Amino acid sequence: MSETAVTRELAEFVANSHWRDIPPAVRREGVRGLLNHVGCALGGCTDVAIGLAIRVLAPSFGAGQAGLIGRGERCDVLNAAFLNSAGGNVLEYDDTHLPTVMHPAAPVAPGLFALAEARGASGAELLHAFILGVEVSCRVGNAVMPHHYRRGAHITATCGVFGAAAAAGKLLGLDPVRMNWALGHAATQSAGLVESLGSMSKSIGVGNAARNGLAGALFAEAGLTAAESAIEGKYGFAAVASDTVDLGKIGDGLGERWEILANAYKPYPCGVVLFPVIDACLELRHRLPAADQFDIGRIARVEVRGHPLLRERTDRPDVADGRSAKVSLQHSVAVALLRGAAGIAQFTDAAVGDPAVRALRDRVIAADDASIPVEAAFVAVRLDDGSSLSEQVHAGRGTPGRPMSDIELDAKVSECAAFSAPFVDMPALIAAIRDIETLGDAAHIMRMTVPA
Amino acid sequence: MSETAVTRELAEFVANSHWRDIPPAVRREGVRGLLNHVGCALGGCTDVAIGLAIRVLAPSFGAGQAGLIGRGERCDVLNAAFLNSAGGNVLEYDDTHLPTVMHPAAPVAPGLFALAEARGASGAELLHAFILGVEVSCRVGNAVMPHHYRRGAHITATCGVFGAAAAAGKLLGLDPVRMNWALGHAATQSAGLVESLGSMSKSIGVGNAARNGLAGALFAEAGLTAAESAIEGKYGFAAVASDTVDLGKIGDGLGERWEILANAYKPYPCGVVLFPVIDACLELRHRLPAADQFDIGRIARVEVRGHPLLRERTDRPDVADGRSAKVSLQHSVAVALLRGAAGIAQFTDAAVGDPAVRALRDRVIAADDASIPVEAAFVAVRLDDGSSLSEQVHAGRGTPGRPMSDIELDAKVSECAAFSAPFVDMPALIAAIRDIETLGDAAHIMRMTVPA
Repeated sequence: MSETAVTRELAEFVANSHWRDIPPAVRREGVRGLLNHVGCALGGCTDVAIGLAIRVLAPSFGAGQAGLIGRGERCDVLNAAFLNSAGGNVLEYDDTHLPTVMHPAAPVAPGLFALAEARGASGAELLHAFILGVEVSCRVGNAVMPHHYRRGAHITATCGVFGAAAAAGKLLGLDPVRMNWALGHAATQSAGLVESLGSMSKSIGVGNAARNGLAGALFAEAGLTAAESAIEGKYGFAAVASDTVDLGKIGDGLGERWEILANAYKPYPCGVVLFPVIDACLELRHRLPAADQFDIGRIARVEVRGHPLLRERTDRPDVADGRSAKVSLQHSVAVALLRGAAGIAQFTDAAVGDPAVRALRDRVIAADDASIPVEAAFVAVRLDDGSSLSEQVHAGRGTPGRPMSDIELDAKVSECAAFSAPFVDMPALIAAIRDIETLGDAAHIMRMTVPA
Repeated sequence: MSETAVTRELAEFVANSHWRDIPPAVRREGVRGLLNHVGCALGGCTDVAIGLAIRVLAPSFGAGQAGLIGRGERCDVLNAAFLNSAGGNVLEYDDTHLPTVMHPAAPVAPGLFALAEARGASGAELLHAFILGVEVSCRVGNAVMPHHYRRGAHITATCGVFGAAAAAGKLLGLDPVRMNWALGHAATQSAGLVESLGSMSKSIGVGNAARNGLAGALFAEAGLTAAESAIEGKYGFAAVASDTVDLGKIGDGLGERWEILANAYKPYPCGVVLFPVIDACLELRHRLPAADQFDIGRIARVEVRGHPLLRERTDRPDVADGRSAKVSLQHSVAVALLRGAAGIAQFTDAAVGDPAVRALRDRVIAADDASIPVEAAFVAVRLDDGSSLSEQVHAGRGTPGRPMSDIELDAKVSECAAFSAPFVDMPALIAAIRDIETLGDAAHIMRMTVPA
């Protein structure tokens, strides 16, 4: 692939891709990505930010062509893409493309489900488009990392819009010229700041990536032209996005090496660096006496040792709310030891305010150990009688060395639904998504996520 | 103003501004900016890109709370903001903030007119919000220029979203905290590439600035939080937008020096550097015999001399369509000499294809003269008998030394309406906008722009 026409060649790859070109392992990871996304969106559907956004957008809802996951409202495809994307990401429970730390599914999947409802699509068509969209987001991200994120661009949104446009364009059957325009419209709509993380504004950036990518594909379908060199042009996306551009990464091994295989799924709705710490604490919890027979006051101190990045990102003994708890080492340790769990319920405002959790948070101390890899951690619990238990985790769940199993993923998405959308028949929904390749009508999945 | 909290202090300025704080000259320029915008939107309302965008968005139109300038459709406020903004900018006939080369009105005004229809606002309230929105867009732009635009950011869109959010937030009566959130939502939605100029994709960027700014204000009103330091934060807008950041320009002289006073209005729907050339050609046209008595074949050559930027930007003897004609020196010279005009009708695809225009384009030659300022030009017409006429223009119309008069502005907006929306009673509309300070219901203006 020539570096001088990467937008066009990426568009040609997507437009010309056949389902038979997608290897089985890639299809399987695509299914897992969709399942994880639908689960996360079910978990996030009652989040306060999503409720507020729906209230704001409701007067601008067009005819009800598409549903909102886990909810009763129906609206136009663009608002559905925005809200389902924001909802899929709001809990920080997403998939993560490890090379870029991007969450690819939330911008890409919602437009596809909306189009499946409004225009019709088979399960295989939707899965194919999803895999291609993830591929595009991640490859555009690879080309502008690491400076892109380091400067302050929220890559999930800024690069997700490309994947959203490509995926929707694929489902719409765009020819290469129109696919190129769709990517051009994505480029000129690319937005999102790391500064917004930690506030509800983050959800607007992620939702827009889905909405604007879908809109870009629809605009291209209708004939609105765009810059052919939107990514690589002198005044294009890459020039604006990063000082460390490597356009070769967009086309290198395209169709042979698949980025979705570098996708991981979070086992806990919190920062990635906390995973091995939580694993160790859950293991220790099993070795302590049962909760009803054990006075938590007997824990004198919890000592955590990990890669320096762990403390840099998560040393937060004082947490104000569920949102900040998701990046607090102390809170994560406390809930894992006290509750034997670190799911959605353990990162709510209520969990943060729990006096027992607060008391244990105060007894957690952390130390750097540069010899420990970032996917590993060491945790020791010192009891008041001087005895102690310790646990070393070499590869936390949800890291490349210990990917989430299908059974763990099913349990995760079931936990999400139980938290916010208990009316969903999860065994049936999980089965439908796992069999999506054989599903004649992909919209069936959306109908399974809403109240009867 | 401290440089460490510019977003908050800008929000406080807008939220706390009183109508009585706005000097008469600033109010007057605000009226001219609104008039120019409404005229441009009337002129652009039948553009093919706008028609295509409406077709794409129509299925996503919410309840008809707001009108589309010059058209019969009604829709929700967000889609109205998008479409009226895109329409106001599509002809390249906008206002121009000279220090940043930004077109401030198109992103800022449409959300205000939509809110005036949906929620009610007096003319003075709308004008006040418009002036503040322009102030915010331009000051954010000043802080990140020149590198922001040079790198490839389309400043009309990337900075316009801030003004759109601030203006809409003012009309909604946001308190300083919510106004800060509105600016934060704007920051994380800031997008637009120079690479998209020349394609229809440009309209998506400009339309989004209006839409997303308005949405940001509505999200903030509802309580969606955002980063307080969205502009100046470590991973905020300024860090991402430019390597030549001067945050001091955001607050310097705020409330004392008004950016709208540096706003100019285009006398011709084409590139700014062409204005003095066209002025000279129109003057020469008057000195040639009347068109019906003069054989254009007698023009042997037209010689243009100007600042090197003139040729760099506009030396385009071959033009393919109306869109590229707007940045063609040769085409502009030809129509001005042949037709005695350089309005919307002279930059259409039909005008480009006219054989007489094409023939004259081929006889235009241009030369650099670094001693000529960019707002000046020299044009000489050599006739076949060896005689010649020449004209030197020191300050083209629409440049700082020769701003558009009120009479010229009225004529311009009337030309716009005559081209695309001849049903509008322009004398009445112009009078209503000029008297907007006394108008009880600002939505009255929108009602005057649509077919009865």
